[in-house]
Parts: sequence; C-alpha cells; structure tokens
Amino acid sequence: MASFRVCVLTLFPDMFPGPLGYSLAGKALEAGIWSLKTVNIRHYARNQHVDNAPFGGGPGMVMRADVIDAALRENRESWLPFVYMTPRGQALTQEDAWALARIGGVCILCGRFEGVDQRVLDKHGANELSIGDYILSGGELAALVLLDSIIRLIPGVIKSMESLQEESFSRGLLEYHQYTRPRVWSDRAVPGVLVSGHHKRVKEWRRIQSEVITRERRPDLWHRYAVAMADGQGGIVEQQ
Amino acid sequence: MASFRVCVLTLFPDMFPGPLGYSLAGKALEAGIWSLKTVNIRHYARNQHVDNAPFGGGPGMVMRADVIDAALRENRESWLPFVYMTPRGQALTQEDAWALARIGGVCILCGRFEGVDQRVLDKHGANELSIGDYILSGGELAALVLLDSIIRLIPGVIKSMESLQEESFSRGLLEYHQYTRPRVWSDRAVPGVLVSGHHKRVKEWRRIQSEVITRERRPDLWHRYAVAMADGQGGIVEQQ
Repeated sequence: MASFRVCVLTLFPDMFPGPLGYSLAGKALEAGIWSLKTVNIRHYARNQHVDNAPFGGGPGMVMRADVIDAALRENRESWLPFVYMTPRGQALTQEDAWALARIGGVCILCGRFEGVDQRVLDKHGANELSIGDYILSGGELAALVLLDSIIRLIPGVIKSMESLQEESFSRGLLEYHQYTRPRVWSDRAVPGVLVSGHHKRVKEWRRIQSEVITRERRPDLWHRYAVAMADGQGGIVEQQ
Repeated sequence: MASFRVCVLTLFPDMFPGPLGYSLAGKALEAGIWSLKTVNIRHYARNQHVDNAPFGGGPGMVMRADVIDAALRENRESWLPFVYMTPRGQALTQEDAWALARIGGVCILCGRFEGVDQRVLDKHGANELSIGDYILSGGELAALVLLDSIIRLIPGVIKSMESLQEESFSRGLLEYHQYTRPRVWSDRAVPGVLVSGHHKRVKEWRRIQSEVITRERRPDLWHRYAVAMADGQGGIVEQQ
C-alpha cells in the first residue's frame, strides 16, 4: 500500500496529476510511494445539475450538497482527513503539510463557482484550507499546491533530508542570498566571506542576511521571530 | 496580439499550461486572449550544468547566473515585468494579480533546488513573489497559481464581472456561508432568512457571518478590517 493516499473530488479530473506527474512527485507516484484517486463530481449529479443558484441571491452558482455528499460517501475512506480548498479557509502552513504527511492521506474537495453548500461541509467536518490571499478559478490548483507541499515530505521522495531542515520557514526566517560558480560573473563577484573558508563567519553572515530580508519583506514573520528571540527561544537559530 | 503575454523559464516546460489548459483559462488560451511561451532553461546550459554547489557550503544546489541570464536575454521582452517565484518573496496578493493583469504580461522564472544565484536576480531586477508560507518542490506550481489568479481577471475570460466584485478579499472579509437547492437536505434546512425574500436582512446576515468567520479564521485580516472601520472607511462594506 502506498505511504500516502490521495483522493480528489473535482469537476476537472484531467487536471490531475498534472504538474505532479513530473519530477520527484511523478517518480514517487510511479514508484507507488503515493497513490492518486480522482473522482469526477459530475458523475454523482445523476439527473440534475452539479450547481444551482444561491439562496438569498447573489451572483454565480453554488455546488449542491447532495451531489458532493454522494461523491464523498462512495469514495472517501473514513480515516482520511477531509479538506476543502477555499480562499476563506485557514491559511496553509508548512506545519499543516508535515501533519498531513504523517497522517498518511487526504481527501480533497476542489470548489468551483461561488462555493459549496455549507451543509455538506458541516456534515463531513471539512477542514477549510486556503493557499493564500488571492482568488483562483477553482480549487484544483490549490489542491495540487497542497499535495506538492505534502508529497516532498514523505520518506523516500527527497533523498537528502538535510535540505528539508535548512529551508525557509524551518527556522522562522526567510532564506539568505545564494551564490554559485562562476566566482566572478558579469563584473559581479561573490561576497568575499562566502569564499573565505571561515565556516563561523559564513553562518553569521547568512543569519544576519536572513534577518534583514525577513524584516524587509515580511514584517509579520519578523515580528513572530523577534518575540520568540526575546522569550529566550533562541534555539530556533543555531548558536555560534 | 494576445491581451496578456506570458513567458515562463523552467526546467519542466511540460508542466505548462497543465491545469491552465482546461476550463476558462484553457478556452482563453485557445482563443488567443493570452499567449504562453515556455523556455527550457536547460537549453542555455551548453557544456555545463544548470546548477552547482553553493559558495559558503550548505545542502543542495544553486542555479547558475550565467545560464539563467542567457535564457532571459534571448526570451524576455524588455517591457515584461520579471517575477521570480520563491518562498522568500513578498506575499502574492489579489492586488498584485490585478496590477499584472493591467500591465498585460509577465516573465516568470521558476526556481528549483536551493534557489538561484543572487547576481542574476539583481541584474534583471527580479520581483520575488511567494504564494504562501509553505515549501514546494519548485516554482512551477507557484507560477501556475500566479497565472491563474491573473488570467481570470483579463477582460473576456469571465463573463460576469459581478462575480469578481463579490468574492473574498474584494471587501477585506472572508465569504459567508452559501446554500442552494434542495431547501431541506439530510435533515438540514437552509437558514430561514435566506428564503425570506427580505433583501436587507439577507445582506445584514451575510455581513455578520463574514465578520464572524473572518475574526475566527484570520485574525490578521480581521484586525486590518477593524482598523479600517474605525478610521471611518466603512465604505468598503455596503451600507444599509
């Protein structure tokens, strides 16, 4: 059995696995490290439409509770967390990705139109997740993003677990600048400290740079980091 | 000429248009409302690797400045904003999507590995954008998300512009619950106010619900909204 089981309810099953059919996720899918079941919601509409006008008025259409309920009852394994991708959900974090990777599977509902009838979300205890503060044409790309963030954390997908530790958010700061060969390119030299061979100074330079970049670009993250430092939780940054 | 021109630099050109080849974005691509040019960065590596070890040490590999520079110089129309998708970028917002839709095009660099040599980002004045606080296996899905958020705003892609006004974030609050037929389903009735035909009460009910949901799920958005209200900018919510 696959280490991670995915069930996706969508009106566009052909969008899956899409970009997840390539690169590391694609190889892991082929190797059976994760499995993918796509369910076309339309097949559960029978003699009616998938959507209908919202009660109370307003533009657009709303996906019917009975149709989605039928799709869920036939396809969701009961132990799978049920996630509904929507801009009004909780903001997806790296911790959510780790948590879902550990649970071992997820059943994702991709919304379209103006949304989904609230009653089917209530009945099935949906976890509403948002990938960011912008609007997409449907939940499919959001589902692909959620899955990509999870799949790379499954053991066996990425060889070097070291990479997973060093990356942005693992330490609450954004990443420092990176440089590689050639040492001088287009009249631009790599910062001297990085070629000094002085391991301690390199670390210090990178930490300071991460702090500057975080403060400048993401005052919200910077604030959280500064509070944690003040509380003496300096352990989230490696000590010199 | 297309209303919106897209150029994507990637190591995985086959991932495009991917999910954007379906539904509204797919129809708009076929109709020539937007155009897509994918550039395989690997073609510009010539006799060397695309990536190399980072100066200063650390895990993973960094994409070379000279290779990406060659790909950019040959393919980027100079008027196109240059965006680099990375978790350390500014957070993508709906306003960014509107701004790029108005400009009429974008050139997107999709990072892989530990990132890109900083010098090529500096040279070409990259706008670093992040779609959220989680890590993906590369910039490709992030680019697809950015493009989807833009494309649906291009005139002619979505028929009803009314839908674009009502949605989450347009007013600084998350969306209220939606309900559609049947009126009673699985012992759950639609809230009475929504079938009352009383337009003013429906509006009020929805506003209160949006406020409750926003306060509960997104204290950050709620805070911004509350400050705006206190400053007398109540006009962002429709007045009774």
